[in-house]
Amino acid sequence: MVSRRTARDLRNENRFEVLHALFELGPSTRQELARHTGLSSATVATLVTEFLSEGVLHIATVERNTGGRPQERLTIDPDRGRIVGVDVAETYVDATVYDLALGALGHGEVALDEHENGQAYVVDGIIRAIESAVEASGTEHERIIGVGVSMPGHVHPDAGVSVFAPNWDWHDVHIEEMLEKSLQISVYVDNPLKAVILSEMWFGVGRVVDSMAVVNLGTGVGAGIAIDGSLIRGATNNAGEWGHTLLQLDGRQCRCGRRGCVEAYLGVHGLETTLAEIDPEHPALRQPRQRDFVEAVADGLTAGDPALMDLARRTSHYLAAALGDLVNLLNVPTVTLTGWTSNALAEWLVPAVRDELPDHVMPGSLPDLTVEASQVPGNAVALGMAAFTLEQFLIRLGLASPARTRPQADPDRGLDQSRHGHV
Amino acid sequence: MVSRRTARDLRNENRFEVLHALFELGPSTRQELARHTGLSSATVATLVTEFLSEGVLHIATVERNTGGRPQERLTIDPDRGRIVGVDVAETYVDATVYDLALGALGHGEVALDEHENGQAYVVDGIIRAIESAVEASGTEHERIIGVGVSMPGHVHPDAGVSVFAPNWDWHDVHIEEMLEKSLQISVYVDNPLKAVILSEMWFGVGRVVDSMAVVNLGTGVGAGIAIDGSLIRGATNNAGEWGHTLLQLDGRQCRCGRRGCVEAYLGVHGLETTLAEIDPEHPALRQPRQRDFVEAVADGLTAGDPALMDLARRTSHYLAAALGDLVNLLNVPTVTLTGWTSNALAEWLVPAVRDELPDHVMPGSLPDLTVEASQVPGNAVALGMAAFTLEQFLIRLGLASPARTRPQADPDRGLDQSRHGHV
Repeated sequence: MVSRRTARDLRNENRFEVLHALFELGPSTRQELARHTGLSSATVATLVTEFLSEGVLHIATVERNTGGRPQERLTIDPDRGRIVGVDVAETYVDATVYDLALGALGHGEVALDEHENGQAYVVDGIIRAIESAVEASGTEHERIIGVGVSMPGHVHPDAGVSVFAPNWDWHDVHIEEMLEKSLQISVYVDNPLKAVILSEMWFGVGRVVDSMAVVNLGTGVGAGIAIDGSLIRGATNNAGEWGHTLLQLDGRQCRCGRRGCVEAYLGVHGLETTLAEIDPEHPALRQPRQRDFVEAVADGLTAGDPALMDLARRTSHYLAAALGDLVNLLNVPTVTLTGWTSNALAEWLVPAVRDELPDHVMPGSLPDLTVEASQVPGNAVALGMAAFTLEQFLIRLGLASPARTRPQADPDRGLDQSRHGHV
Repeated sequence: MVSRRTARDLRNENRFEVLHALFELGPSTRQELARHTGLSSATVATLVTEFLSEGVLHIATVERNTGGRPQERLTIDPDRGRIVGVDVAETYVDATVYDLALGALGHGEVALDEHENGQAYVVDGIIRAIESAVEASGTEHERIIGVGVSMPGHVHPDAGVSVFAPNWDWHDVHIEEMLEKSLQISVYVDNPLKAVILSEMWFGVGRVVDSMAVVNLGTGVGAGIAIDGSLIRGATNNAGEWGHTLLQLDGRQCRCGRRGCVEAYLGVHGLETTLAEIDPEHPALRQPRQRDFVEAVADGLTAGDPALMDLARRTSHYLAAALGDLVNLLNVPTVTLTGWTSNALAEWLVPAVRDELPDHVMPGSLPDLTVEASQVPGNAVALGMAAFTLEQFLIRLGLASPARTRPQADPDRGLDQSRHGHV
């Protein structure tokens, strides 16, 4: 039996759409919300009443038109609470405090050494980054309604977090519980690829298109994918591992154990490997930390360093090829680039990738295809985690069900496994 | 603005689910349909009444239980009409006549020479295959309610069919109109990847799981993809071109113009290339047609030919790697293999691929992953095209809207193109 959308799911989607419309339009009348979402006036009125009663929305202004009834403009009440979004990467923890309308209020960052990533070390870094952001924003602890934390690895809704990196020997770590115990706040953990695509859907090209991929370039690389307005999570919340699709069968060793993965060419270590192929003595390779290496590359490119120009050229070739695969498989109309490597190198990578992409994309998928640096403001991972945390908050208030935000185990799966060949 | 599911779409999905349930359960009571679909008894009763009034369903049996009301068992009326499903490949046209319950009644096949594929030649082959199937099934022409034709190439709902193969220099060919004019029957054209995934959803593993990929191996290769019960079409109905994702950057020349595509290793010409690398004098390479080559390979494998054993080993390595990419990107729980090469070589490929796949798949996506030869009966492309044609028939009867079956142009797309970088 396949799963089915029920009227209840539809109702939950409607709630999120009213919320999304408010993010997009700013303060709006019920009429404007109905027009923008395509929902009936009656449905919008009911949903708005529920949101108002929980204090999630408030009335921003009342306009008195000649002759008509007073028009109330509604908006998300930013002061209903505070949300912390946290981006945990192998090289840093970045925390941002947001108001309920997802406006950034303050920011904290802690550097992590990618060579030293034990659980206690990482948890301590997360706590310190959150404390720093809370202090910078002048937030009182009791006003925080939730913390969303992105972990670089496989985040399984039941089994916990596993990270498969050489220096992160984590398996089934229940980081959610560890942080909740320490912070005494509700914590939601997910994977950065899910966070960046939610950000892109709410605050980026998702305002214009329904289907898109957002490619995240940093120490690791991956893609967030949305199709027809739905985030693709996969059977075990592990979709989007574009970094572990092949660029070169039996090619460079990847840290995942496989050879020739996209990440072995486009992750920071991949860039270092490419530069070492061009000039093993290049001074940028003497930087002990990845952040400093990427900074040295960006500076050197600005200065016109020929070895680094060659690095940018080869990296753009790899990126165009790997994006071509993504487009050929999914026929998405839009790809955006995010992540700290993208941010540092976009001006060299994006034009070159646009030039080469037609050589890789099937002709039928090329017309109207757009590739651009993501326009999502601030840290897209932290913002996406804050958006998930807002959804979780609405669920706790009874204003939404978890249907849309978490992958669901299929209760019927396995019934008929006898006729399938398990790998 | 993003698209939105309306109550009307939901109602259409409900209709299809009642139909799917009948395909799965056979003759059923309204109560059984409600239990199986999770729909309310009232909804099922309304839908059944509409289907009965159009003759799509009929009452199969009436059971009189002690004391209770008589129980009607409903079934799709196979005799309401006939549907022809047609699989056009580069090497053959295969047509099957189905009853309305999609039971196969008769079959016709015409061989195509892959070196000689002009439009008139192909259209003539299609007409002859249909005539042959109609004759074999003893079908009267006026009972045929529609013909579904799969074309090997990009089938754009508005712009027609384009095929990008060396010998198929087709661009924007309106094959639908050409065939309708000749056959005087409603014709629906789509791409084989969409047909095989619809077959798999209705008659294969889709009965057990919601998300799956079905990999089609023949002259060309590609993947049909379903996520959470929805077929992935892509922005221009061009999703699934897994055959044109990379196995080897700058590797073997692919007929699409790119180098190193999966198809250059796993399409029939790819198999020929691999065998030529092993033994350029191998007698199987002397077969002028691809069908004969694959048959010679299957026969030689049965006989234990060492060069062909090596071919099977290398091909399994390529296939495991390329399936690993599909699973890593989409985290689908199930992959099935279909297509005439798969059918001929499954017993050598499937076990070897299962053995190697764990080396390619991310650990978090591996548990419960299944890979198997598709269990869809008969020609999965022809059956899928018949299922699409049945959906089109329901749409014409006013029993469904096109929302689910065709990709929709996004009326808002392009509004804000100025801020995107067109490729």
